[in-house]
Amino acid sequence: MEIVDLTGLAQKLFDDVRTISADGIGVTRDSYGSGETATANYLRQFAEEQGLHVEADRAANLVFSLPNGDPAEPVIWVGSHMDSVPQGGNFDGLAGIIAGLLCLIAQKQRGRGSPTPLRVIAFRGEESAWFGKAYMGSSALFGKLSSDDLQLKHRTSGKTLSSYMRNAGADTAAIAAQEVLFDKAKAKAYLELHIEQGPIMVARKIALGVVPGIRGNVRHKRITCVGQAGHSGAVPRWLRHDAVFAVAQLITRLDEHWRVLLERGVDLVVTAGIIETDSSVHSISRIPGEVSFSFEARSKNEETIEGFYQFMRNECSLISQERGVTFEFDRRLESAPALMDKNICEAFELACDGMGIRWETVPSGAGHDASLFANAGIPSGMLFIRNENGSHNPREAMEIDDFMLGVRVLDHTIGCL
Amino acid sequence: MEIVDLTGLAQKLFDDVRTISADGIGVTRDSYGSGETATANYLRQFAEEQGLHVEADRAANLVFSLPNGDPAEPVIWVGSHMDSVPQGGNFDGLAGIIAGLLCLIAQKQRGRGSPTPLRVIAFRGEESAWFGKAYMGSSALFGKLSSDDLQLKHRTSGKTLSSYMRNAGADTAAIAAQEVLFDKAKAKAYLELHIEQGPIMVARKIALGVVPGIRGNVRHKRITCVGQAGHSGAVPRWLRHDAVFAVAQLITRLDEHWRVLLERGVDLVVTAGIIETDSSVHSISRIPGEVSFSFEARSKNEETIEGFYQFMRNECSLISQERGVTFEFDRRLESAPALMDKNICEAFELACDGMGIRWETVPSGAGHDASLFANAGIPSGMLFIRNENGSHNPREAMEIDDFMLGVRVLDHTIGCL
Repeated sequence: MEIVDLTGLAQKLFDDVRTISADGIGVTRDSYGSGETATANYLRQFAEEQGLHVEADRAANLVFSLPNGDPAEPVIWVGSHMDSVPQGGNFDGLAGIIAGLLCLIAQKQRGRGSPTPLRVIAFRGEESAWFGKAYMGSSALFGKLSSDDLQLKHRTSGKTLSSYMRNAGADTAAIAAQEVLFDKAKAKAYLELHIEQGPIMVARKIALGVVPGIRGNVRHKRITCVGQAGHSGAVPRWLRHDAVFAVAQLITRLDEHWRVLLERGVDLVVTAGIIETDSSVHSISRIPGEVSFSFEARSKNEETIEGFYQFMRNECSLISQERGVTFEFDRRLESAPALMDKNICEAFELACDGMGIRWETVPSGAGHDASLFANAGIPSGMLFIRNENGSHNPREAMEIDDFMLGVRVLDHTIGCL
Repeated sequence: MEIVDLTGLAQKLFDDVRTISADGIGVTRDSYGSGETATANYLRQFAEEQGLHVEADRAANLVFSLPNGDPAEPVIWVGSHMDSVPQGGNFDGLAGIIAGLLCLIAQKQRGRGSPTPLRVIAFRGEESAWFGKAYMGSSALFGKLSSDDLQLKHRTSGKTLSSYMRNAGADTAAIAAQEVLFDKAKAKAYLELHIEQGPIMVARKIALGVVPGIRGNVRHKRITCVGQAGHSGAVPRWLRHDAVFAVAQLITRLDEHWRVLLERGVDLVVTAGIIETDSSVHSISRIPGEVSFSFEARSKNEETIEGFYQFMRNECSLISQERGVTFEFDRRLESAPALMDKNICEAFELACDGMGIRWETVPSGAGHDASLFANAGIPSGMLFIRNENGSHNPREAMEIDDFMLGVRVLDHTIGCL
């Protein structure tokens, strides 16, 4: 069975899931919510129709395999996530699951599995947009969701992650106890195919990228700067404690420091994706007494992350003194950077070379479930597919032919490990 | 009748209106809405019980006078506004109305009016917090509300100012036609007592301030910076079009330029009271593609206002080029600065001196309905009352004794003009 013969099936899967989760602008597959669950139900039914075995793990992720597998055998895992950001694109996450399913279907149609059996995992809860925490579905497997994490609140409903996970069928008691729900000893490798979320591969005109490592990050969902409200016409500059001016100064200083670090060759991205004055009281004519914002810094290098975080905290202290404001921080969230396995990278590269496919090394700026596997000591690898317009937006544009090249490389590599 | 004998009545009026408009945190007397209308109904009933004549003008403001006045006579107007900002304080606006009513009651109890008869006006719609436009009630009287203004939308309901004014009983057809609904020829003077909204008088330990002039302003309710959304981990700094970083840079530059202008002795305050990313799509891990904010600059000097406005527009152009973002501006709103009448200021000062009350000259940073009267050529004057903690917040703190000093000076001045 040639993988390319599955192109039509791949297209149908992408189209069907897009239709299921369309929101009028992009797709919305909310973590542990209705969009993600509809996707899970669709994938389960599809896989069963294809004669695959499907089960949910104790963190409510879906696991697909050929029927009659031996639970004692070591296996190769291939996975990615089902959820999307609000008004996101169709390929971020979904591409990796469909790639894994196509490899299973190809094995089934060939009538033989890979030397090391394949299991495909469709994670729930990878996107931080919903609860402010990423990799929830894979973290739960490795005992890495804390009870604090489980109390994180959904961005709109305000209900806890714990209640969402329980409704989706997860064993939240075991997860809260930080039980390890995944048998690391029997995992020979973890592979993930994913669209590139940055602009590099389009610019470099390469269809496939081999990922050497994944950036980690440090985050605050909400930092609140508290100053003092007042009449905008009546308080002179020297008596103001304007929270918006204070935060503007902070962000400007972060930007300047970021620029200087880049000139020194440091790997770093910095984002304040959310900023809001209090809509119940803000007005044009009121000095803003309060403003909240999110903070995120990412780097391949753990020291860079920590250094930039401390720089940010220090700037907050300085600005507090200068302007008579205070900064209140919610819980610090972090994800460690991760290195991909050299042998797996080489296997991807050899597969590409063997098929005459141009590839380059492309580090991952975004985080992925693969980080959790790599940091748990499981040899891991990621393959990027060229994608235009970035991700986390409805204009994601992956060509199905590029995707099928990736599936061929993935299928071949699974056979070699 | 000594004014001081009315202290208890003044306290009751403040207490009653506070109770009517309490919102759990401060007071909310929304322009042309339920809080303002409840206040108007209370004041009308109170004045009628006191034997005063009450009527609404064609802009739905309330006008109080002694009964049996001659409509042909020239009159002295005393007024201020009934509305408040959301979760505002009890004294901003209300103090001036209660002061005027106490003067009328004192005249009635004395059995004789002032040589030039007194009319007290309680304006609706002075606060810009509700529709983004200030002095709506007085502007309407002078034909200064444009049809564009009437289409401004309420901050939460989204309904137009026009529909709110019509519901409050205003003649919106005449207002939309910019008819002048106020007989300027018969207005000998306009006087307004108001709490100081800045910190100067508390610092200087003076109970009364005589206002030489009122700052004007230029505003945008909403400027939107449009960049490009993207994955926060995957787009390097040089390919970003981050709207929040762009606006932070703009605000920081405005702040720096403001500081330089102050060092040169320029009168100016600058505020961005509102800033918001789009809550339907923003997230920690998404480069913000859009952020909206309000802009306001105030000065006694028209050229300073215009100069700073052009500086802001120019900085937006520069940042647009630097960062590949665009700035979209809603309608520019403006209020001209206003000078108070020298003779009226002198009359206030003489009254203070005659009663042994310490006073100082205190310019008004905030705008007031008095600006409209002054700029219509009616001799106008304002008296400030000491007030702690600024205004537009629930912690406004005016002492009743300071207020009664102001009412005595007002009563005396009315008798002298």
